[in-house]
Amino acid sequence: MTTLPDCQALDARDPLSPLRALFHIPEGVIYLDGNSLGVMPRATAARVQAVVQEEWGVGLIRSWNTAGWFEWPQRIGDKIGRLIGAGPGQTVATDSTSVNLFKVLSLAMALQQRRAPERRTIVSERSNFPTDLYIAEALCRQHGWTLRLIDAAELPGCLGGNTGVLMLTHVNYRTGAMHDMAGITAAAHAAGALTVWDLAHSAGAVPVDLNGANADFAVGCGYKYLNGGPGAPAFAWLHPRHAAALGPDLWQPLAGWWGHAAPFAFTPNYQPAPGIGRFLCGTQPIISLAALECGVDTVLAAEPLGGMAALRAKSLALTDLFIDLVEERCAGHGLELVTPRSHAQRGSQVCLSRQTGAYAIVQALIARGVIGDFRAGDDQQPDILRFGFTPLYLSHADVWHAVEHLRQVLDSGEWQRPEFHRQHAVT
Amino acid sequence: MTTLPDCQALDARDPLSPLRALFHIPEGVIYLDGNSLGVMPRATAARVQAVVQEEWGVGLIRSWNTAGWFEWPQRIGDKIGRLIGAGPGQTVATDSTSVNLFKVLSLAMALQQRRAPERRTIVSERSNFPTDLYIAEALCRQHGWTLRLIDAAELPGCLGGNTGVLMLTHVNYRTGAMHDMAGITAAAHAAGALTVWDLAHSAGAVPVDLNGANADFAVGCGYKYLNGGPGAPAFAWLHPRHAAALGPDLWQPLAGWWGHAAPFAFTPNYQPAPGIGRFLCGTQPIISLAALECGVDTVLAAEPLGGMAALRAKSLALTDLFIDLVEERCAGHGLELVTPRSHAQRGSQVCLSRQTGAYAIVQALIARGVIGDFRAGDDQQPDILRFGFTPLYLSHADVWHAVEHLRQVLDSGEWQRPEFHRQHAVT
Repeated sequence: MTTLPDCQALDARDPLSPLRALFHIPEGVIYLDGNSLGVMPRATAARVQAVVQEEWGVGLIRSWNTAGWFEWPQRIGDKIGRLIGAGPGQTVATDSTSVNLFKVLSLAMALQQRRAPERRTIVSERSNFPTDLYIAEALCRQHGWTLRLIDAAELPGCLGGNTGVLMLTHVNYRTGAMHDMAGITAAAHAAGALTVWDLAHSAGAVPVDLNGANADFAVGCGYKYLNGGPGAPAFAWLHPRHAAALGPDLWQPLAGWWGHAAPFAFTPNYQPAPGIGRFLCGTQPIISLAALECGVDTVLAAEPLGGMAALRAKSLALTDLFIDLVEERCAGHGLELVTPRSHAQRGSQVCLSRQTGAYAIVQALIARGVIGDFRAGDDQQPDILRFGFTPLYLSHADVWHAVEHLRQVLDSGEWQRPEFHRQHAVT
Repeated sequence: MTTLPDCQALDARDPLSPLRALFHIPEGVIYLDGNSLGVMPRATAARVQAVVQEEWGVGLIRSWNTAGWFEWPQRIGDKIGRLIGAGPGQTVATDSTSVNLFKVLSLAMALQQRRAPERRTIVSERSNFPTDLYIAEALCRQHGWTLRLIDAAELPGCLGGNTGVLMLTHVNYRTGAMHDMAGITAAAHAAGALTVWDLAHSAGAVPVDLNGANADFAVGCGYKYLNGGPGAPAFAWLHPRHAAALGPDLWQPLAGWWGHAAPFAFTPNYQPAPGIGRFLCGTQPIISLAALECGVDTVLAAEPLGGMAALRAKSLALTDLFIDLVEERCAGHGLELVTPRSHAQRGSQVCLSRQTGAYAIVQALIARGVIGDFRAGDDQQPDILRFGFTPLYLSHADVWHAVEHLRQVLDSGEWQRPEFHRQHAVT
């Protein structure tokens, strides 16, 4: 049996443990929801204040130039690029994940339309995050394409001759299951399809190598493992081979002035900027972008300590520990592991299912300061208790205490108290 | 001749003068660029800090419910609605102006397609803000429509039988010329067209009555006269008669989860929310939204002092004064008034043209702390010196001093100094 001192000993040897000091963790909270909204970095408050009071308040309009606001989408995009295997100039921080997915999926469909016009199907996973499916559904309606939903187990055999685009979320938001990006991309390319990857639960959480995997398009989220703050701007990426091949006549439909080749020439006709620049549309929320940059910097702070490889090793250690402790200490309570045991298939979260009571158990844990979240099931999927593990600020002892709270909630029947049973929205 | 004491006497009688205290005006600055980026309200820094440190830092994921983040796009939208003649539930604060224009224009085109499929032309003004034209151009390409650019003088006679949508910016960004929204909307409707109004230079600057004008769709900007901060989220509005008539099968294409009828049911198929809710797409930048709300509140603070009518009266007094003083004190320097003298046709800015030197004169003024901006001309339009007048924080004495600086810059030839002649981007 694993003990608390065992966990504390692991923490004492953890080369990443100094990174916790970069964050403000509220007193009494064990935060296992960084997959939904990352914790606030300590640097963010002062940086945001400087942007508001100095750059805006004093610099006013001049700060577009003097503070470099114009460059932020690309500059912060480049920082994110270092975490996802992208080179400089390949990534922009902008808009929301949904809006960015609309842009990249539109362009992927347009590209494929030129190469193989008979390929008019988007293949995606039935359990993909709903907004991804909605955006794909809307674009299929508009362009007369078909959206075909499959189970992960059907990949890659399901990629028939009519598949134009394979759109997947790298790490599943419900289960934490992770796809083999390089293998699936290669299979998709062999089948003649382009790939669009959603890195919402990957960027800053697991190693990603977009260029190495030869992926085509990607989007991702700024407010989860990148710790960019509530609703932080998202990002978009495209492979340089596509960027180089995009001529002036291949637009993404959100053809706003910021994606123009010469936005301040104020010419009446649209001319897309070369490369990733054309994924910009309107003016970006500078204050929220500043917070995003602080969040990205917390992940980059791991670079001298081993970077994403070290973060990944710790993430797997934490999720392994959580699974082991739940199995050791919470046995007999009907919890089932949903997340794959295999390291190669696991993101940075662990999901447990339970026939009944999952919602109330999560609420009872939150009342104790152990913040995870609940995802409702349906005919095909069980209710889920979802726990995200951010190795930047979580310790092995945190994991021990979290499971100890879970054990107490279950053993005592505390979760059956009526106040834990009212449902309300959780993002 | 008007004197400084005359101006000071006007300030002494100005019922809106207490509102200046709501803003941080940097020492030595006369800010005539609120039409590009509004000044920072004093309340914003503390509010943003509270959102970062308390709502995010301590509340974490729970703040989506406990701080009401979920409701902000509608709640702030309703506050903006009070400034543009919109009822509750008709406006959302979200995304950028360009992205919102894409949404409303898409829906306007789809609506018109059902009513009169032969009407496949968008009419807009040649001198409209470029991003509006780019977005329209992109949608026309996509749907096989035509974008027809006209001069304002051609309205409404140019609205032929093939006009589906008339898309106009209410106050022209270059000239400050304002359209008669009610009259043009009535003419457009009589001609069978729907109207899309861009209120970027109107919201918080001039009285707007969208419902009274029976307009169809509108978008607008949060960072100009609404003082929402750099790149603040924008807004979108649609008339309740359209909102009521939009069935579940009429989507705007950015069909993200936040515009779903039940975003947290995580169902695989998109079902648009009723009414304005379907104009939401992804998760919004909460920190920037908080700053936007502070800005909107500064305009609402004028409500007990007479509201938009009082702001309008002062705006006209300031722009009249500026025009008079320039003509009295800067005569013989080749400045021409571009903005209409007629109050009914004037927004809250004054533009002057000059054959040469406009850029350098603006730079010389900026060096003296008088911040306006420059807009380059082309074959058809002259170079422009652009001055925005925000009655919330500008005084009559500010106008006097601004013109006195302009006079000195011109009389002394100071603007001819080489350091004022290098061009760089200005938003």
